[in-house]
Amino acid sequence: MEQSLQGIRVLDLTRVLAGPYATMVMADLGADVVKVEMPKTGDDARQFGPFVGEESAYFMSINRGKRSIVLNLKDEEDKNVFLSLAEKADVVMENYRPGTMEKLGLGYDHLKEVNPTVIYAATSGFGHTGPYAKRPAYDAVVQAMGGLMSITGPKGGPPTRVGTSIGDITSGLFTVIGVLAALQHRHHTGEGQKVDVSMLDCQVAILENAIARFVVTGEVPKPGGNRHPSITPFEPFETEDGEIMIAAGNDALFAKLCRVLGTEAWLEDERFATNTQRTENIEIIVPLINDLTRKKKTSKWQELLDEAGIPNGPINSIDQVLSDPQVKARDMVKEVEHPTAGLLKMAGVPVKMSKTQGKIKSPAPELGEHQEQVIKEWLSK
Amino acid sequence: MEQSLQGIRVLDLTRVLAGPYATMVMADLGADVVKVEMPKTGDDARQFGPFVGEESAYFMSINRGKRSIVLNLKDEEDKNVFLSLAEKADVVMENYRPGTMEKLGLGYDHLKEVNPTVIYAATSGFGHTGPYAKRPAYDAVVQAMGGLMSITGPKGGPPTRVGTSIGDITSGLFTVIGVLAALQHRHHTGEGQKVDVSMLDCQVAILENAIARFVVTGEVPKPGGNRHPSITPFEPFETEDGEIMIAAGNDALFAKLCRVLGTEAWLEDERFATNTQRTENIEIIVPLINDLTRKKKTSKWQELLDEAGIPNGPINSIDQVLSDPQVKARDMVKEVEHPTAGLLKMAGVPVKMSKTQGKIKSPAPELGEHQEQVIKEWLSK
Repeated sequence: MEQSLQGIRVLDLTRVLAGPYATMVMADLGADVVKVEMPKTGDDARQFGPFVGEESAYFMSINRGKRSIVLNLKDEEDKNVFLSLAEKADVVMENYRPGTMEKLGLGYDHLKEVNPTVIYAATSGFGHTGPYAKRPAYDAVVQAMGGLMSITGPKGGPPTRVGTSIGDITSGLFTVIGVLAALQHRHHTGEGQKVDVSMLDCQVAILENAIARFVVTGEVPKPGGNRHPSITPFEPFETEDGEIMIAAGNDALFAKLCRVLGTEAWLEDERFATNTQRTENIEIIVPLINDLTRKKKTSKWQELLDEAGIPNGPINSIDQVLSDPQVKARDMVKEVEHPTAGLLKMAGVPVKMSKTQGKIKSPAPELGEHQEQVIKEWLSK
Repeated sequence: MEQSLQGIRVLDLTRVLAGPYATMVMADLGADVVKVEMPKTGDDARQFGPFVGEESAYFMSINRGKRSIVLNLKDEEDKNVFLSLAEKADVVMENYRPGTMEKLGLGYDHLKEVNPTVIYAATSGFGHTGPYAKRPAYDAVVQAMGGLMSITGPKGGPPTRVGTSIGDITSGLFTVIGVLAALQHRHHTGEGQKVDVSMLDCQVAILENAIARFVVTGEVPKPGGNRHPSITPFEPFETEDGEIMIAAGNDALFAKLCRVLGTEAWLEDERFATNTQRTENIEIIVPLINDLTRKKKTSKWQELLDEAGIPNGPINSIDQVLSDPQVKARDMVKEVEHPTAGLLKMAGVPVKMSKTQGKIKSPAPELGEHQEQVIKEWLSK
């Protein structure tokens, strides 16, 4: 089956997570991603645990479907090979600290000389402009600086880091969007351009209602625990044997929930008439619901709530996620055979397309595995 | 300045957050997004607080740059108007529960009859296939079911919801990627297709190293607090007057950190020689660093660490984020004038493009504000 980004050549200088996550998404959608690594050590992430034999499982899970070549960009000969490849590329992607590529003589202004239609995508901690442009960053730094930590965590507790590197991942996704939008523009005009995505900017872009709340009320949002800040009831409730997340996001769902709980009288209750009123009276309604949910087991509530069409679910651990029937049915856990590390499970491709379904094309490459193959393919005629 | 998605017509049936976030990103990049709302109440999010006058700040912040028309899709006449608009659309986007559009006679199979090249993007809780397909969901439910809560929170503490609706937002971003990839395919083949993105799938796709860690070690990942699970030192450290996030993500950065801390002797210390060894000896090294960082103020450490090129940053609250010099320099806080609600601050556009920079085209629409305008524009020959 054809894939949507088939034929798109990506010259990929990215390392660690934000950039490699972006080029993984592009590879999964069919792009030809050639990873350019430094001699000997390659991508830093090759050294991040846990390991399977000699191979980093972390590296393998986000570099599937790519090919690897080794080039020392400080060496004149290798630099010329890189420039020849850049001439043939549709997209060049990098996540160096701003200024690094320029110092190598390989910034966008240089590359567009050899390839005027190239799309150059840079993902960096703070972006290529502004007072912090030259500062290095990692996910934890932008989660801290971007405000997300300040609104995540137990109610009344300390700011808490999101358990996945969401600063890297969201900037990776916005970078892919920028590259695909630039391809769209190139179709109409033949023009290339530079796409500059900052992890910090992306953190601001995903703050969602926290900005609106602060701007309107003047109150600085704090970690809110597991409760939605403006929708009620919308949080985990206690059951006889654990917890269940119940999300009654509008008045119709609240009415259905009242019928499941046997509290139809609440529908006539002034305090609970609208979402705004329920949110005002959250300290009254939540204990009332907990008193009722504690009377049955989680699985029983799941059944009753599912029947009534009320959004609900258990709080799954990673092992439960990987064996969840829906996750499996959607092909979201894939086994990929690596020549030395063996069979490795990793996340599947979340964009499902009826005509051009993406796929994991191959395991992550060994360092420099495709040197000759790529140079032959890209540079012959 | 031209925008990258200029000329792309999006017929937008999305409500609440995941879908509207996706169509906001497309509108910011220049697409013509026409929001189809139900009569009287419109998008549920119009009722979500906080409010400025009569207007939801929440709704306004994620529906900027779109136009609104009102159609009752259960009414034959309105349905025909919708079908005429769908005929003219490049993309139809919806985030109803799977089956809803089919019941209305407006699913992809129906729409492709009137417009064979249409790209139909559906964002839903669990996707259009699999045993949970018909179940409703909200962000909190998929954060719970998708494993992200189980790895977020204080060390030893309970699973914790991310403070922004990351389940909605990531599925919105993957939906945009699917739509843009489908446009790329359409350029080559003229073919439309259906893009089916599930919030739960996207949660699995962003679990990152948690899957690798579980698969390799067999240990179920738990909330890890603010420490990186496999890179050391990489967490907030105590200062004389607060905390500072320090992320020494590789051996070179660790060496620089040792020079700033005056602990060059650690570079000869077997226990700290590589990242793997530092992570094994994390309970030794972290207290040693804290003993040193407590001796100076946060701002002094920032200065010293910046000079040395070591990734670091303060843990900012939302008010601090909005007044951060870098965030301002990158144009990430925009003021948008709404005709009745007045001036509202919201996040800017994080994809920076050198030739086709996106922008906030207009404030969020009033319900049905563009009824005549859109029908005239799209349906007049």
